[in-house]
Amino acid sequence: LRMESSDSKPETGCLSIIVLGASGDLAKKKTFPALFHLHRQGFFESHDVHIFGYARSKMSDDEVRNRLRGYLTPCQGCEIIREEDASKFMGLIKYVSGPYDAEEGFLLLDKEISAIEDKTERSSRRLFYFALPPSVYPTVCKMIKSCCMSKCHLVISPADKGGWTRIVVEKPFGRDLDSAEALSTQIGELFDESQIYRIDHYLGKELVQNLLVLRFANRLFMPLWNHDNISNVQIVFKENFGTEGRGGYFDQYGIIRDILQNHLLQVLQSVLPINDEEVVIGQYEGYKDDPTVPKDSNTPTFATMVIRIHNERWEGVPFILKAGKSLNSKKAEIRVQFKDVPGDIFKSKKLGRNEFVIRLQPYEAIYMKLTVKEPGLEMKTALSELDLSYRQRYQDVVIPEAYERLILDTIRGDQQHFVRRDELKAAWEIFTPYLHKIDKKEVHSVPYKAGSRGPVEADKLAEKVGYVQTHGYVWIPPTLKPS
Amino acid sequence: LRMESSDSKPETGCLSIIVLGASGDLAKKKTFPALFHLHRQGFFESHDVHIFGYARSKMSDDEVRNRLRGYLTPCQGCEIIREEDASKFMGLIKYVSGPYDAEEGFLLLDKEISAIEDKTERSSRRLFYFALPPSVYPTVCKMIKSCCMSKCHLVISPADKGGWTRIVVEKPFGRDLDSAEALSTQIGELFDESQIYRIDHYLGKELVQNLLVLRFANRLFMPLWNHDNISNVQIVFKENFGTEGRGGYFDQYGIIRDILQNHLLQVLQSVLPINDEEVVIGQYEGYKDDPTVPKDSNTPTFATMVIRIHNERWEGVPFILKAGKSLNSKKAEIRVQFKDVPGDIFKSKKLGRNEFVIRLQPYEAIYMKLTVKEPGLEMKTALSELDLSYRQRYQDVVIPEAYERLILDTIRGDQQHFVRRDELKAAWEIFTPYLHKIDKKEVHSVPYKAGSRGPVEADKLAEKVGYVQTHGYVWIPPTLKPS
Amino acid sequence: LRMESSDSKPETGCLSIIVLGASGDLAKKKTFPALFHLHRQGFFESHDVHIFGYARSKMSDDEVRNRLRGYLTPCQGCEIIREEDASKFMGLIKYVSGPYDAEEGFLLLDKEISAIEDKTERSSRRLFYFALPPSVYPTVCKMIKSCCMSKCHLVISPADKGGWTRIVVEKPFGRDLDSAEALSTQIGELFDESQIYRIDHYLGKELVQNLLVLRFANRLFMPLWNHDNISNVQIVFKENFGTEGRGGYFDQYGIIRDILQNHLLQVLQSVLPINDEEVVIGQYEGYKDDPTVPKDSNTPTFATMVIRIHNERWEGVPFILKAGKSLNSKKAEIRVQFKDVPGDIFKSKKLGRNEFVIRLQPYEAIYMKLTVKEPGLEMKTALSELDLSYRQRYQDVVIPEAYERLILDTIRGDQQHFVRRDELKAAWEIFTPYLHKIDKKEVHSVPYKAGSRGPVEADKLAEKVGYVQTHGYVWIPPTLKPS
Amino acid sequence: LRMESSDSKPETGCLSIIVLGASGDLAKKKTFPALFHLHRQGFFESHDVHIFGYARSKMSDDEVRNRLRGYLTPCQGCEIIREEDASKFMGLIKYVSGPYDAEEGFLLLDKEISAIEDKTERSSRRLFYFALPPSVYPTVCKMIKSCCMSKCHLVISPADKGGWTRIVVEKPFGRDLDSAEALSTQIGELFDESQIYRIDHYLGKELVQNLLVLRFANRLFMPLWNHDNISNVQIVFKENFGTEGRGGYFDQYGIIRDILQNHLLQVLQSVLPINDEEVVIGQYEGYKDDPTVPKDSNTPTFATMVIRIHNERWEGVPFILKAGKSLNSKKAEIRVQFKDVPGDIFKSKKLGRNEFVIRLQPYEAIYMKLTVKEPGLEMKTALSELDLSYRQRYQDVVIPEAYERLILDTIRGDQQHFVRRDELKAAWEIFTPYLHKIDKKEVHSVPYKAGSRGPVEADKLAEKVGYVQTHGYVWIPPTLKPS
Repeated sequence: LRMESSDSKPETGCLSIIVLGASGDLAKKKTFPALFHLHRQGFFESHDVHIFGYARSKMSDDEVRNRLRGYLTPCQGCEIIREEDASKFMGLIKYVSGPYDAEEGFLLLDKEISAIEDKTERSSRRLFYFALPPSVYPTVCKMIKSCCMSKCHLVISPADKGGWTRIVVEKPFGRDLDSAEALSTQIGELFDESQIYRIDHYLGKELVQNLLVLRFANRLFMPLWNHDNISNVQIVFKENFGTEGRGGYFDQYGIIRDILQNHLLQVLQSVLPINDEEVVIGQYEGYKDDPTVPKDSNTPTFATMVIRIHNERWEGVPFILKAGKSLNSKKAEIRVQFKDVPGDIFKSKKLGRNEFVIRLQPYEAIYMKLTVKEPGLEMKTALSELDLSYRQRYQDVVIPEAYERLILDTIRGDQQHFVRRDELKAAWEIFTPYLHKIDKKEVHSVPYKAGSRGPVEADKLAEKVGYVQTHGYVWIPPTLKPS
Repeated sequence: LRMESSDSKPETGCLSIIVLGASGDLAKKKTFPALFHLHRQGFFESHDVHIFGYARSKMSDDEVRNRLRGYLTPCQGCEIIREEDASKFMGLIKYVSGPYDAEEGFLLLDKEISAIEDKTERSSRRLFYFALPPSVYPTVCKMIKSCCMSKCHLVISPADKGGWTRIVVEKPFGRDLDSAEALSTQIGELFDESQIYRIDHYLGKELVQNLLVLRFANRLFMPLWNHDNISNVQIVFKENFGTEGRGGYFDQYGIIRDILQNHLLQVLQSVLPINDEEVVIGQYEGYKDDPTVPKDSNTPTFATMVIRIHNERWEGVPFILKAGKSLNSKKAEIRVQFKDVPGDIFKSKKLGRNEFVIRLQPYEAIYMKLTVKEPGLEMKTALSELDLSYRQRYQDVVIPEAYERLILDTIRGDQQHFVRRDELKAAWEIFTPYLHKIDKKEVHSVPYKAGSRGPVEADKLAEKVGYVQTHGYVWIPPTLKPS
Repeated sequence: LRMESSDSKPETGCLSIIVLGASGDLAKKKTFPALFHLHRQGFFESHDVHIFGYARSKMSDDEVRNRLRGYLTPCQGCEIIREEDASKFMGLIKYVSGPYDAEEGFLLLDKEISAIEDKTERSSRRLFYFALPPSVYPTVCKMIKSCCMSKCHLVISPADKGGWTRIVVEKPFGRDLDSAEALSTQIGELFDESQIYRIDHYLGKELVQNLLVLRFANRLFMPLWNHDNISNVQIVFKENFGTEGRGGYFDQYGIIRDILQNHLLQVLQSVLPINDEEVVIGQYEGYKDDPTVPKDSNTPTFATMVIRIHNERWEGVPFILKAGKSLNSKKAEIRVQFKDVPGDIFKSKKLGRNEFVIRLQPYEAIYMKLTVKEPGLEMKTALSELDLSYRQRYQDVVIPEAYERLILDTIRGDQQHFVRRDELKAAWEIFTPYLHKIDKKEVHSVPYKAGSRGPVEADKLAEKVGYVQTHGYVWIPPTLKPS
Repeated sequence: LRMESSDSKPETGCLSIIVLGASGDLAKKKTFPALFHLHRQGFFESHDVHIFGYARSKMSDDEVRNRLRGYLTPCQGCEIIREEDASKFMGLIKYVSGPYDAEEGFLLLDKEISAIEDKTERSSRRLFYFALPPSVYPTVCKMIKSCCMSKCHLVISPADKGGWTRIVVEKPFGRDLDSAEALSTQIGELFDESQIYRIDHYLGKELVQNLLVLRFANRLFMPLWNHDNISNVQIVFKENFGTEGRGGYFDQYGIIRDILQNHLLQVLQSVLPINDEEVVIGQYEGYKDDPTVPKDSNTPTFATMVIRIHNERWEGVPFILKAGKSLNSKKAEIRVQFKDVPGDIFKSKKLGRNEFVIRLQPYEAIYMKLTVKEPGLEMKTALSELDLSYRQRYQDVVIPEAYERLILDTIRGDQQHFVRRDELKAAWEIFTPYLHKIDKKEVHSVPYKAGSRGPVEADKLAEKVGYVQTHGYVWIPPTLKPS
C-alpha cells in the first residue's frame, strides 16, 4: 500500500473531485467557485482533473453546469470572468444523481470515476467533498467505503501511479463532547485519521499560522512571549450582520459552537476549565423576530470567554475570546497586549500599552503599537505604531481565499491546517460544560443592541482580567499607493 | 543668588542673545537663521528678546542686518520668507564691534545690553553664543566674566525677576584628552558647569533621545535590550561628499574627532579601551589633491571603530561606530541587530536577522526588520518590516532643526541635550590613545575610492565582530500620500 | 480486557515473579537479592507473592534455595541478615527447569504458576524477569506468549481480580540501530509496548528524575535553565576499575554502548548528528593484556562526546558526555556550569564559575558552587557552595537501590523509569554512525594510563567547547553527625 | 594639601584615637573593648597608636585605666583575657579632662596629641570617636575644628608623612528630616563629607555587603533578581528583649528611628512614599511599666512597614521591613521569597516557595529553600535547602565584630560601610511623614504580648502584600563537626 505518501514527489495523473451535495447552497456558493479559481489560476494544470457533482435531484450535466455558472465569481484581482475560462471549467464537471443512503447511486458514481481513471495510467485519486449536513456524514461514509474507494490498492504493477481516497468534511462536528465523539467514532471506523480533512474554513489557522511564524522566526519575540511580559491576549471575531435568513439554523448552535469552539482554540493546550464568572453571553435585540427562531431562545449571538492556561509560559495570562453577530464592526484579529512598563520614567501608561496586533479582517495587517518620541521641540511621547500592511507591502500578490488553499492542501495531503480529532475533542471538552448550562438555561444571554459593541458586561470582564483599552488612539492604516 | 533655578516657572522679561563672531560663516549660515526660525515660529513671543552681534569688523547695525538678510532661509515647510517676518527679526538685531582680547568692546556691549535691561523689570538673562574658533574661548570667557555678566545678583528687590549668564560653545573641544581638559579647566575657572552649554549640534543626542524613549517607554523592548538578545549595534554616519573647500581645516582633526568622538559616544559608560585590531581607518583617494591638505597627510576621512562595554547588560555586544566622507550614500542611523533565532525551525537565518533601525537621515524613520509568513498558498517566510516613517505618519508636523532646539534648550536652562564636562572627558579618554597613534603615523589610513562603501577592511571588521549583512533585501520606504 | 489499568486502585491477590536464567550470575547477584530486600522491607505484604526460578540446569527447590542463600546481602542500613527473614523469603521460591527454546519447560512453568493462582481469587499477575543474554530474548518471548500468559482474560466473572503479563529485559538492546530495531520488532510482535519494561538499571533516570524535580518544582531555576545562562552541561560516569574478568564480553560492546548510549541520553530531544571533531575515545593501557580481549581491539574503554541540541532553549550549549573505566575516581554526576558574570565587578571569574552539581556517586549530594563574601574584615570574595547532602540531611532515610525500585515499578505498572522503544531508537540513531566508524577502525582509541583522568585530549575537548575547570577548589562534603 | 589620599600606600607613623565621652557607657562597653580587640589581634602593629580619653570628670590616667579594665572582654574565639595583652593596651591610653563647650580642654588635648606626634616623623592622623549624645555634636565639632585639627597641612617637608582629621559619629542623627538636615548642615560647615564617618554599627551594611557579592558575583542570580521572579523581600530585625533600663531614652525615638530608619534602607533608591495602609506599629504590653516611659506613650516598640520601589527591576515587589523588641526570638535576616512556579506540575506550591535567606543572627548563614525529590521509592517532593553555614564552613575564621571593622575602616579612610549624608537624607524623607503621624498620635501603636510574634496585624499585612509563610518547615542548621 502506497496510499498516504508523506514525502512528496508530485503526484500526477487522474484526480477526481467529488462534490457531495452538489445542488446545495454551500456547494454552489463556496465549493464550486473555489474549484473554479484554482482551475483558472493554473493549480490543476499538472493533474488530469475531473469534477463530479452528486446529489439527489435528477439533472443532466448541462443543467447542473448552467445552475453553477451563475455562482462563479471573478478571481481576486480580476474584474470579470473570461467566458473562455468558465467554459473550460464547466467542461470538467459531470453529474451523478442518487440517494445518500443507498448503494445504487454510489455504485454509479464509482463506475463514472473508474471509467475515466481507466483511461489514465493507474492513478486513482479521489477527493470527496462533503457539502452536506453532518447528520448524513456516517451514512455517506459507509457508502463511499463500500462503493467508491480508490482503486489504487487493487493493482500492483510497474505502471501503477498509486492513489488515495480522502474526505473533506465541514463543521459543525457535533453539538457537544458526546455527540462529537460519537460522530468521530462512526467515521473513524470507516476511514483512517489520515484520510479525513476537517475544514476550519475561516479564522483559526490562518491567524495562527501567521502568529507561529512571527513568534518562532523572529528573535525579537523570543524573550517577550510569556507571562512576564504579556498581560493578556484577545482573539476577536466580530461580525456587523446578524443571522438574517438563517436564524433557525443558527439557533441550534449559537455563537460559541459556531465560532469559539471551532476556530479559536487550536493552539491552546493545558487549558483549565472555564470559570462561569469569566463568561459573558449576549443576544442581540431583534434576533427573536426571525420567525424561525424560538420565542424563548437563550442561544447566544455574542460571547466573551476567558481561557486560562496552566503552564510555565502562560500561567496568569487571560486569553479573551470574543465573537459576536450584529456588532458595530466586522473584525477578526489577535491582539497581544503587553504589561505596563515597570518603573516607567516616561509615564507611558497614560498613553496606552504596547500591543501587537495581527489582523485578518477587514484586511490583512500586522502592527505593533508603541510609544515614540513625538517629533518636535519638546521631549513628549506619543503612541504610534510599527506597521506592516500586507496590501501595501505586497501590492501585487494575490492572497488566496481559505477555501482554495484548503482544497489544494487536501490534494497535496497536507493536513496541518485541518482540525485533528484530538484537537476537536479537546476543544469540546473545554466548552461542553458551559454549553450544557446554556441549553438548560442555567445561564442567560444578556440582550444587547444590534450595531453596538455588544453587552457592556463583556467590556467589564475584559477590563477585570487585565485588558486596558487605549482611549483616544485610532489606528490609521497607511495610505495605499495610488494606482 | 537665585541664578540657576532648576524648577521652572516660566521666566519672562528681558532676554539678550549675544552672537560672538557675528560676521563669521557659522553665525551667518547657522546661528542667525536658527534664531530667525525660532522667532518666526513664535518661540520668542513670551520673552522680550534682543539679539546682539559682536565681532571685530566695524559696521553699522544696518550693514550687519543687510549682510545677514541674504542668509536667512525659509522655515521648514515654507517655501518663501515673508518679508514682514524678516523685517521684524532684523529689527531685534544690534551690532557692537570690538576686539576679543580687550575689555573696551565688552564694556560697550555690556552697556548696550544693560540699557535695554534697565527698561524692563529687573530681568537680566544673557546668552552668549560662541560662533568663534576654540582658541579664543578662554580669552572671551574672561572678558565676559569681567565685563558682561548678568546683573541679576546685584539687586535684590521684590520687583527683581532674576536672570542668568549662559555660554554656548561648539566643538571642537580640544584635540585630545590633555588639550580638552586644559580648555575645560580654563573655562571652568570662570563659569560653573551649569552655565556652560556645549553643543553637539548634529547627530548624537537626537538619535539617542529617540532610542531612550523607545527603550524605556515600551514594555516590549524591556526584555530584549541586552547581550542575550542583541548581537551588535551599529552607529553609522556616512556622508556622500568630501571635504571640498575645507580640506586644510578638516585635516587638523580627521573623521574620528569630527564625528566619532563628538557625536557617537554620549550614552556609553564602562567603555573598555579600544583594541587596535578593532579599528579600520581610511582616506579617500583624491583627498590630498586639495592644495590645503599636506601631501603626507595620514588624517582619516573614514573610520570604523568597535567599542566594547563592560557591564552586565552589554558585555559581549560590539558597538560598531562608523563614519566617513565621500562614501556612496548619506546616512545617519542606529542599527540594533538581534542574534539568530536559536533552534530555528523556519530557517529564518537565511533570510536575515531581526534588526531595529532608527534612521535620522536621509529622513526620519524607525523600522523593525522581521520575518513574516509570505502571503500565499505556501508556508514560506519572507523578510519584511514593521515601519514607522515619521514623514508619512506625521505629515503635518514640522520637525525642528537641531540648532533651533538647542538654542531654545539653552534659554530654558535644560542641559540634558548638551555635552557634560565628564562626558567630554570620558569620550576623549577612549579615543586619545588611538588618535595619538594616527598622529605619530603608527597606524595608517587605508585608501578607498570616493563614492564607494569605504575600505573593504571595515566591512570585514564588522563581519568579524558579528554583524551579519542582509543580502537581497532592500528597505522600501512606504510611499507617501500624494499631495 | 482490563489488563493494563492505568489508574490505580491497588491490586491484590496472586503475583508471580518468574526469574528466567535463575542459575546465572545476574540473577544470583542482583535479581534475587533485590527481591529479598523488597520482601524484608515489607513491600510485598499486600500481595500473595510467589517467586519462580527457571533455568536449564536440573535442581530441586532446596538446591536452588541453598545456592541463592549465599548471595543474599543485608538491606541498606542493616548489618546482618536475620535468619528468620532469609527463611521466609526462601520459602517463596520454587524452581522449574527446562530449555529456553522448547515449549515443554514453559508449559510446566505455566502449570506451576496456575496451580497457585487457582487457589486465589482469579488474580493472574505474571512478571517475567529476563536474567538472560539478549540473543535468547525473542525465543523466550515466543515461549511465554504461547505457554505462560496471564489467565486473566480467559474468565470474566464478578470475582475476577484481573491480572497482566509483563516482561523485564535488560540491556544491551542491540549493537546498533539496525540490530536494536530488529530485536524491538521481534519482541514487539509478541508483546505490546505497555508490557515491556526495559531496565536502565543504573545511572540515567535517577539523576534525571532529580534534575526534573529541581528544574520544574523550583521557581529559582526557571529563568536560569537556558542557553543565555548555562555554558555547558557535563554528564560524567567514571569508574576506577577496569574490565577485570569480563574483558572479552566488554570488548564486544565498548564504553559507548555500555554507558553512553544506554544511560545518558534519555531526556534529550532534537539532538544534532555527532561531530567527529567533538569526540575523544580512549583505551586504557593494559586493557589488551586480558587474554579474552583481541590483540588488535579498538574498543574504547573511555569516551567523551559532545552532544548538541537544536532547540530554542539549548542551542549553543554543549552537553559533554563522559564515561570511562580504570580512571582515577569513581563518580557519577551531572554538572551544570553557568556562564561568566557579564560586566563582573568582583572579578569572580578568577575564582571559578557557578556550577550546579547533582551527584549520584560516591554518595548522593546536590550542591551549588557560588561566590560569597569571605567572612572577615576585608571585602574579599571566595568560592563556596550551597549544599544539600542527602546522607546528612536524610540521615534515617533508606535510599533504595535502583533494582529494587524498578521491580516495584514493574509490579505497579509504572513505566516512566524504563526505556521506551522510541527513546531507544533515538539513542541508537545518534550513536550508530560513530560506532560503525569505531568498528571499521576509521577512528582510533587513544591510549591512556590506568588510574589517570583519561586521555588529555578529552580535557582539551571539554575546554574547547567551553567548560572552565575550577582550579584550587575542592568540594568538602559536610561532615556527618557523629553517631 | 595631601589630606584625604584616596589611593592607598599604607600609612604609617603616629595615629591618635581620641574617644570623646570616655567615661560614658558607650565608650566603656563598646568603644574601648573594640579598640582592645583590634590591638590584641595585631591590627595596630604597623601604626604608632595612641589612645586618648576625653570627658568632663577629672581623673588620672590610672583611674581611667582601672575603670576601663573591668569592661574588657576576651576576643572572639578566646576564653580569657591574657593579663599581658590588657596591660599593653592600657599603656596606650591617656586621659584628658575638660568641658565639651569651651576651648580650654581641647587645647590641652591638642597639646598632648601634638607632643606625641612631634616625636614621630611628621605624621598627624587624628581620629575623633564621638561617644557622646548627638546634642553636643555641633559644639564639639567646633572645638575640634578650632583647637585639635591634624597638623599635617602646616608643614610641607620631604619628611612629612601627612595625616588627616576624621570624626566618627553614631546615630541617632536627628529625629526627623528637618532636625537631621540641621545637624548635617552644622557639621558640614566644619568638616568635609570625606572626614565624617557616620556609623551604622549593626545590621544594615553587613547584610547588604553579603547580598551585593551574592548578587553581582554569581551568574545564577543575574536572571533571578527582579520582579518577574521575586515575590517579596523581608528584612527582619527581631529582639527577644525589651527596653529594660533605658525605656525613657528609647521612648524618645521608638523602633522606627532606632532600627528601620537607620539600618534597613541604605541600598534602596526610587522609594515611593509609604502608604499608611502598609504599616503596622505595635507596643508590647508592659513597656509603659518602666517608670521612665510616659504613661501615654504611643512610641512603637514594633513596626512592619512595606517599602515600594519604582524602577524597572523592582516595581511590584514589596520590601517588608520588620523590627521589634520583646519578641519571641532574636533574629536579623534578609529573606528573598520567590514567586510560585507557574504551570507547576509537581504541586510544589503546597510545600512552600523558594526562599533565599541571608542570616546575620543568631549566627551567620546563607541558605536557599528549594523543593527536591525526596529520596525513596516514590516520586515525592519535599522542601529542603541548599545551605552555607559560615560557622561550619569557616570553622577557624574569626568573623570580626562590626565595631572593630568600622574603626579599622575609619583608619583606612574607607567610607563605603558608613552612612553618606545623602543616604541619611533619603532615609529620613521616607520615614518622616509617618513618624510625624505617630508623634501627633494620628496613628496608634497596637498592643502585643511580650514574647510573642508581635501584632497579628503585622503577619496579616505581610500576607496581604504577598508573603507566603511556610508551614511545617523548620530549618535545621547543619550540625557542627565535633571539636
